[in-house]
Order: sequence, then structure tokens, then C-alpha cells
Amino acid sequence: MEVPVSSEKILTGHFLQVCRDTVSLPDGKHTTREYVIHPGAVMIVALLDDGRVVLERQYRYPVHAVMIEFPAGKLDAGESSLACAQRELQEETGYTAREWARAGVLHPVISYSTEFIDIWFARGLTPGERRLDAGEFLDVFTATPAELLGWCGSGQVTDAKTLTGMLWLQNMLSGAWTLAWQPARL
Amino acid sequence: MEVPVSSEKILTGHFLQVCRDTVSLPDGKHTTREYVIHPGAVMIVALLDDGRVVLERQYRYPVHAVMIEFPAGKLDAGESSLACAQRELQEETGYTAREWARAGVLHPVISYSTEFIDIWFARGLTPGERRLDAGEFLDVFTATPAELLGWCGSGQVTDAKTLTGMLWLQNMLSGAWTLAWQPARL
Repeated sequence: MEVPVSSEKILTGHFLQVCRDTVSLPDGKHTTREYVIHPGAVMIVALLDDGRVVLERQYRYPVHAVMIEFPAGKLDAGESSLACAQRELQEETGYTAREWARAGVLHPVISYSTEFIDIWFARGLTPGERRLDAGEFLDVFTATPAELLGWCGSGQVTDAKTLTGMLWLQNMLSGAWTLAWQPARL
Repeated sequence: MEVPVSSEKILTGHFLQVCRDTVSLPDGKHTTREYVIHPGAVMIVALLDDGRVVLERQYRYPVHAVMIEFPAGKLDAGESSLACAQRELQEETGYTAREWARAGVLHPVISYSTEFIDIWFARGLTPGERRLDAGEFLDVFTATPAELLGWCGSGQVTDAKTLTGMLWLQNMLSGAWTLAWQPARL
């Protein structure tokens, strides 16, 4: 347990907000913790009727590489996790889904960010028009779960949220983990 | 592809370093990318002779929770990935290992950090003394792979690197993915 003593904003960027907190450690000493403030995000494992999943290829500047990812995006202010998942899937891939299930949550970087990513599954997909944000460039494609699993093992997929989605997909398809499906609220 | 035009350091923290780059987008327009500079890290999936794995419980201030994690740590300047894995496993858990295998790499946060985490497996473990850094507080414990998998499905494990380690552990144990073991260099 670390008890906050004080907090200051040390970066107000265009995109990143960083805080530095002084905290009291279990031994009573003080230290500082610096971390990115993040609104939270969602990721969508979208299942086509033939069993394929919807993926994206996107250039990611911090790692200077094109990454294979499940669709994902940040929560808008006041937006529910499910509403965000429905919006991001449609904006980035064009697909709408008849049924949704929240699998769980992941924390990508527990040492220096408040970010969480809610993991959603979607099925009953209907294709439609994409509506990418200005300055957003990404390719949408599909793969079988077996193909994606192979890419995770071979190192072609290294994005942690997508690797976590693969863990869910593998154990959901084997029947080891179950999902509680709900109709889409539109 | 995004081509860098210029770069400036916008935060020099005690712990976090943040850059803001101006980049040229595929449509020729300019935008900015802000990201944390990280030296890279390692994670260790350490297998005991009875099949159990070595885990840690650690309070993580940015998410205000005690997290279940595989041992992990940052590369020191000039340190090799394997040397870092051997050092971190011993410092945090006391264990040394006779054999090591590099499984792959994960990128925890491709939208705003350069961080990568090399994934190492270790076996042939011998217990020893821990040497925690000042201000480092963590509990070491062991679990069977089946127990850990259950915690990943139930939401008790949400750390993305540990979930990725579980994906590797599950597919290594099933024989689907193989590892190239090497003797420890001491």
C-alpha cells in the first residue's frame, strides 16, 4: 500500500497528461510516483459468422512499426464502455454487431499509467462504412483464430492488448472460459 | 508510415521522460506524437521442477491495486536482455536458473511508449536470497499454471504482460509453441 501525500501535474501535453505524486511507503519513507493520466479504453474481438476475426494494421510511431491489432479506442468523456466499443468498431472497421459480451479488463502499463482496456467480444456482424478520424490511417483485414495464434507465437503480433485478446479468444473457443452475451443497445 | 520532422523533450521527470515529435502523415499533413521514452524491460516465466510458476504480488500506485505479476524489470544501460532477466529474477525472487529460453517480445503500450518487454522462460531453479531495491516491496509466491489461468479468466490477473506470459505458458505446455533452451551464462 502506498498512501498519497501530494500530487502535481508535471506535463500538460497535446495528448499526454503526466502527474507526479509524493507517496508514503510501507516503511514510512516518502518517494515519488510519476504516471500518465488516461481516460481508459476498449478493445473489440469481433467474430465474423465464418469464425474469422476482424483485425487492423496500423503504423505506430512510438515503436516505429506497423502493428497487427484488434480494434480499440479511448473512452470519450462520460461515454460507457459498451457505447465506446460499438462506436470504435463502427468508426474503425465499419462493422456493427448484434451481440456483445464484456470479457474482462487489462492494464497495459501498471508501472506508469492509469490506463485500463475493457475487453469486448462482438458477434452477429454487419459490414458498413468506416468513419476514420482525421489523421487516422489503418487497414482492416480478417484472419482465422488459428492464423492469429500462429502470428502471436511467431512474433508477428507483439501488441500486448492483442496478445491478451488472443488468450481470451483461445480459451473462449475451447469452452474453458464463457461469455455473457447481450443484445446491442443502439 | 509517419516520417519524423522534428523532436523535442517535453518532460524530464525523476522517472518518466516524454518526447513530442512532429511527423509527416501519409497524406502529407503534419501532426504531433507524444510518447514516453523507455529503455526496455524483461519478464520471466520461471518454472519450478514441480511445474509451478513463480509470481509476485505488488502494489502498483498508478492503478491503486495489488497486482499479480510475473517477475519483471527494466534493462540497465548496456545490459543484455538475458543478463537483465537473470539479475531481476534473482533480485526480486532469489531464484537462479540453470536454463533460459527467450520466447518473444511484447509491446505494452504502442500508442504512447517505446517500451518493449522481452519474454524469458527459466527452469532448473535454485532458491536463494532476494536483494530488493530500496523502496521496493513485493511478495513472492507460486501457483500452478492451471491456477494462474483461472485467475486470468476470472479477472484476478489484469496485468497485460502477465496475461501475455500466460498465453505463452499455455501454448508452450500444450506443445503448440516450442522454446529454444540455453544454459545460463553466469
